[in-house]
Amino acid sequence: MKFLQVVTIEVARQKLLEVSQGWLVATETLPINQAMGKVLAEDIFAIEDLPHFRRSTVDGYAVVAKDTTAAGESLPTFLKVVGVVEMGQGTNFAIKAGECAEIPTGGMLPAGADAVAMVEFCEPFGTDEVAVYKSVAHGSGVIQVGDDMRAGDTLLSKGKRLTPQDIGALAVAGVADVSVFAPPKIAFISTGDELISPHHAPLTDGKIRETNGISLSALAQKHGYHVEHTAVVADDRDAIKQAVSHAMANCQIVAVSGGSSQGKKDMTADILGELSTSGVFVHGIAIKPGKPTILAFDEATKTIMVGLPGQPISAMTAFDLLFGWLARQTTQSPEPFAIPANLSTNVPASEGKMTVYPCTLALNHNQYTVTPIYAKSGLIATLTTAHGYFVINRDTEGHRQGDVVMVHLF
Amino acid sequence: MKFLQVVTIEVARQKLLEVSQGWLVATETLPINQAMGKVLAEDIFAIEDLPHFRRSTVDGYAVVAKDTTAAGESLPTFLKVVGVVEMGQGTNFAIKAGECAEIPTGGMLPAGADAVAMVEFCEPFGTDEVAVYKSVAHGSGVIQVGDDMRAGDTLLSKGKRLTPQDIGALAVAGVADVSVFAPPKIAFISTGDELISPHHAPLTDGKIRETNGISLSALAQKHGYHVEHTAVVADDRDAIKQAVSHAMANCQIVAVSGGSSQGKKDMTADILGELSTSGVFVHGIAIKPGKPTILAFDEATKTIMVGLPGQPISAMTAFDLLFGWLARQTTQSPEPFAIPANLSTNVPASEGKMTVYPCTLALNHNQYTVTPIYAKSGLIATLTTAHGYFVINRDTEGHRQGDVVMVHLF
Repeated sequence: MKFLQVVTIEVARQKLLEVSQGWLVATETLPINQAMGKVLAEDIFAIEDLPHFRRSTVDGYAVVAKDTTAAGESLPTFLKVVGVVEMGQGTNFAIKAGECAEIPTGGMLPAGADAVAMVEFCEPFGTDEVAVYKSVAHGSGVIQVGDDMRAGDTLLSKGKRLTPQDIGALAVAGVADVSVFAPPKIAFISTGDELISPHHAPLTDGKIRETNGISLSALAQKHGYHVEHTAVVADDRDAIKQAVSHAMANCQIVAVSGGSSQGKKDMTADILGELSTSGVFVHGIAIKPGKPTILAFDEATKTIMVGLPGQPISAMTAFDLLFGWLARQTTQSPEPFAIPANLSTNVPASEGKMTVYPCTLALNHNQYTVTPIYAKSGLIATLTTAHGYFVINRDTEGHRQGDVVMVHLF
Repeated sequence: MKFLQVVTIEVARQKLLEVSQGWLVATETLPINQAMGKVLAEDIFAIEDLPHFRRSTVDGYAVVAKDTTAAGESLPTFLKVVGVVEMGQGTNFAIKAGECAEIPTGGMLPAGADAVAMVEFCEPFGTDEVAVYKSVAHGSGVIQVGDDMRAGDTLLSKGKRLTPQDIGALAVAGVADVSVFAPPKIAFISTGDELISPHHAPLTDGKIRETNGISLSALAQKHGYHVEHTAVVADDRDAIKQAVSHAMANCQIVAVSGGSSQGKKDMTADILGELSTSGVFVHGIAIKPGKPTILAFDEATKTIMVGLPGQPISAMTAFDLLFGWLARQTTQSPEPFAIPANLSTNVPASEGKMTVYPCTLALNHNQYTVTPIYAKSGLIATLTTAHGYFVINRDTEGHRQGDVVMVHLF
């Protein structure tokens, strides 16, 4: 049995980031109506001032504001109506002092006007006059040219995960297509003589259903990866080596799960070492669960290889902490928001390890309480009740009831 | 100009929910590897005990625990090795007092064994004996039958939005396919003489780019709707009526946006009234932005019709508050988690209206500070910097700096 050179999660991440510098992070161009949830691979600048013309925000009359200074309920100002602004049309006439023009919400102000009096405070008078019963300030009822965005402004930055609001802003700005990060390709290879297809029933003695290929694929998709393929392979050195080698040809990440027993752990490490130019560079990470995780990199094919524990929760935890983080790093995306919550109970730290606790959240008067879920290693059913997880760092002695921890949502 | 019978958001939601009872909420059956993020339309029960057999959680020797009671570092217990458990195989032999069997992590315990001694505390002795240097408790190193789930247990409930962890639990349980809610079909019809395609450049005077079809589609997808089609129609009563009528044939929701001027508002309300059996049942909601929102229902086609404001932010806010909520109600999904945050500034309420403030979040020592973004109505660029929104209810006088509000993430 090899000694595991256990490193911290920070060291493992840093090494992962270093080798990923050799990655070609691909981008693709998508029409904006297909880009929701994708991460921008370019800065987006406004190419023109928006609005492009002075727009009215109300129904009413475009006026020269100072004409209305003395207007009041008992003493209206009378203005001459010299035109009607049509929706969606240019306004090719001007108004002078003492004049006004009828204008709809969204209409283009005529030259000379600097405010819009709301229709609610105006009353037509005779055939071509209007009485204004309230004074309006300069700029009132008007969106100025460039109020929304100025040509050259940065509208959205590289790394932004596009929301519906962002898609709307792109449409307003006339951006039809955007460059977004293409999902890196990943393969999941589950190993073990004990594994049978999840769709194969009934179970026989000694067998369990294969889970990691399915649950890790779902997790990878959540983090923006494309799952190129999954495979289930028996505990056979040549078969595993062939499966990994095959996947390396067209994937940026090849993940091998299984090998919880000591002999199998060594086999996975040996295979990843043999197939990578720079060999295994992480062999054990100080996280709980997920400690027996192996990382290797092959320079020739630019493939990151990872050996994950066989137990589903351990495998998901290690993958999430490493490759969820890497996906955000390579796309310059910010970390997702976490929820501050007060612990309902004391929680111990594991000596020398960062410990990940699945947990439930309960809201009471704008304040969340968090309760850890304790499950035996390898039992996944309890996880379905978890809302997310929190972490206790290796340099703490745990936390007391009432302490605030940050909960990362599943 | 019609008087708007303004109702509260709670009343509008309740009426919406009532008419949606007439909806046929469709379901579809998907293989679990395509079900991530979908909402379960059925309760899922475990069909068998899992694990299906007693599994070892360590590499070592399956023992009778009481044999090891006296074992210690200086005085080991010697046990006879009577078998080797093979991974993935049934274990068809038994052990008696004084005996043990070699077992890998995940292996099936032989009959008679009730604990596993870790290999780290064992040493082979001679050809068929092993020295155990540490006592093991009954059940130690063993996952019992049914520890993960018991046949008949509810594994997941209707309304659960499936996480990668849930997908994993389904795989473990041997559930190959699940019934999930099918996305309701929705059509977005944007109206206005001023609208030009977002891909049409350059802008001319009086024109703006059509935004609502694209941004509302993205928002609808986020809430699990399927956007059946979008259309842009000029301010022409017959054309709008035809477009709505056409969409009613195969959509559960038809949303018409536009009509910010008084004349146009009336036109949308008239058209929705004419095309629906029960007429317009909400005409104005006490929310800001989003007040001029209209709801109607057609019993014959079971179509909910909604008239949304033309301004993009108003339209998105009203759609989000009404139809995001409705999507969760009809699928029995819980409301998403929101983030408690302290206001960085005083925030006023709008008299008689629920006010929605886009905002940014900043984290400092496990505590978020929230700052509202004030934007003129209709300006969308500032929204791209927002992380989410918070709400000030109509029955409050606003909030003071330091007060906690719940931030809903975009």
